Amino acid sequence: MERPIKPARLRGDRVTMAHGGGGKAMRDLIEEIFTDVFAPPGTEDQARLTAQALTEPGAQLAFTTDSFVVSPPEFPGGDIGKIAVCGTVNDLAVGGARPLWLSAAFIIEEGCEFDLLRRIVASMQAEADKAGVRIVTGDTKVVERGSADKVFVTTSGVGVIPAGRDLQAANIRPGDIALVNGVLGDHGATILAARGDMALTTDIRSDCQSLNALIEAVVAAAPGTRAARDATRGGLASALNEMAEAAGVGIEVAESDLPLRAEVKGVCEVLGLDPLYLANEGTLVLFVPEAEAQAALDAMRATEAGRNAAIIGKATAGPSGRVTMRTLFGGQRLVDTLVGEQLPRIC
Amino acid sequence: MERPIKPARLRGDRVTMAHGGGGKAMRDLIEEIFTDVFAPPGTEDQARLTAQALTEPGAQLAFTTDSFVVSPPEFPGGDIGKIAVCGTVNDLAVGGARPLWLSAAFIIEEGCEFDLLRRIVASMQAEADKAGVRIVTGDTKVVERGSADKVFVTTSGVGVIPAGRDLQAANIRPGDIALVNGVLGDHGATILAARGDMALTTDIRSDCQSLNALIEAVVAAAPGTRAARDATRGGLASALNEMAEAAGVGIEVAESDLPLRAEVKGVCEVLGLDPLYLANEGTLVLFVPEAEAQAALDAMRATEAGRNAAIIGKATAGPSGRVTMRTLFGGQRLVDTLVGEQLPRIC
Repeated sequence: MERPIKPARLRGDRVTMAHGGGGKAMRDLIEEIFTDVFAPPGTEDQARLTAQALTEPGAQLAFTTDSFVVSPPEFPGGDIGKIAVCGTVNDLAVGGARPLWLSAAFIIEEGCEFDLLRRIVASMQAEADKAGVRIVTGDTKVVERGSADKVFVTTSGVGVIPAGRDLQAANIRPGDIALVNGVLGDHGATILAARGDMALTTDIRSDCQSLNALIEAVVAAAPGTRAARDATRGGLASALNEMAEAAGVGIEVAESDLPLRAEVKGVCEVLGLDPLYLANEGTLVLFVPEAEAQAALDAMRATEAGRNAAIIGKATAGPSGRVTMRTLFGGQRLVDTLVGEQLPRIC
Repeated sequence: MERPIKPARLRGDRVTMAHGGGGKAMRDLIEEIFTDVFAPPGTEDQARLTAQALTEPGAQLAFTTDSFVVSPPEFPGGDIGKIAVCGTVNDLAVGGARPLWLSAAFIIEEGCEFDLLRRIVASMQAEADKAGVRIVTGDTKVVERGSADKVFVTTSGVGVIPAGRDLQAANIRPGDIALVNGVLGDHGATILAARGDMALTTDIRSDCQSLNALIEAVVAAAPGTRAARDATRGGLASALNEMAEAAGVGIEVAESDLPLRAEVKGVCEVLGLDPLYLANEGTLVLFVPEAEAQAALDAMRATEAGRNAAIIGKATAGPSGRVTMRTLFGGQRLVDTLVGEQLPRIC
């Protein structure tokens, strides 16, 4: 971000406990690193907001929150700030909401470099601009060295669900077609490689991106769209299982139809991981009536986030809550929910 | 909280990394400890909400966030959960908003006892019930042992500011009277004593409480109320300085009028602390026109949170941004903003 240079008030290059104490040092940190970039409205500890969309008959307010603890905080394709914006924008968008405003709360470890915070904040503002949302309020806390890991970011989001729009998983009916907007597992594979302790070198980048524009495009082209869910922690497998359970349907996918990069397949083979369970940060599953599947696919492919969109399967009358996959070898296998952790601190 | 006993799905008595992995173990943790108590609406990852108040002409939406990292997480008079609800309710209320909905995001250290989480969650729900707000959405993340300190809680809040209400600090005018709702410094002194490393034994309890009902009572009795701010990190001194600066007025308070417990004075004398800078979690400063000061005082004293309310000073034409105190010895001293930390991890 290009910004006018202001006289620096912060001394040194790292956060100290004094920056969390409620006094001048805290104000300097907040102003110089956070509010100079986010430029929230007003000077109070809360944002006061109005939006015409909120007052329209039948509109609903959508409200969501996520904490982000990804390690490392910077990785190919994004950083904890970009994820914190995309993740909350996407939580709103997959529920049918148009995201409007975000809050951002930072828990910072003593010793964290100012420059890391600056990069994270610039990345958040850039992604917020791209997604068309504003970061309107925030908070910072500082904890002693060893009581956090550099920085944790919690974003909450408020949006408006237009009257008549409902993308809840419970709406899926047997025969509906399942689509994804892009390749699977890039985020999980990127974080694995970025940790360094696997000695992996890849060109994979996180898929971290906001999906609100894509969802608006799909809903316009396929107004009967039933449901959307982002496939984050737990990957596509967990998203499909949650959707099957919520709707009381079965879901069948075809392994041959799942879009996967060769590099991600490679990482998974080397490490014995299943890409269906790898986390994504810019990938969603949509269910649409069969008659609108092609329109939805075309609409996705016309957006930046949907270039690699694909039809991957369909909902079936049962067994309720069961997800199965036709394998490349012609067999059928159960795709269960993940039991434990696949990879900690993925988001 | 009395709740029906359900069959336990969680195994063991502590959080493991598997509880953050996005799979079955995470769902068990979330359902058994969080959503069984908070009972959020719906099953999606966002709450869908409607409120008549939001659609009224001239109403504004208020939105705020705070992370809570208080150490220790449980202390006389409250815990991190109660603070997380009160703090966000109060941030909304001092801006004139009627709090409606909260989100709650938990960053949990591996090894954290389930029972600590259960007590925190019960405490949050009890305070939410008392304040008349609902916890409608949330998130959990788990980080490795040593990457957090037991549990951090981030709450965000959404409320509605009724048409015509404006309690921003910039509204204060010279001659306005300053009031507080209760004794100062109880929270800060409680945390100091609770840390144990001071070998202090006191009967002081945190003042941690929601102030929305008190503010509604004051605004009804003194409709000209200009501004309100809660005196949290940095204490009364920091709140007054921020208000003086925002309004471009001076503020004079009288030491003899400041309500203080003998025990808090004692702790401050022993440790060389100034109670003006001690944090509060249920104490606010209000400015009202002189003609309404008695009505505001009476209204506060009639509420549970305002029993010890007092007039402590007034706004003056200048010098702009300066806060001064008439001392018990008849002198005048500057009450500056805190520079560094007085006490880390107070909230």
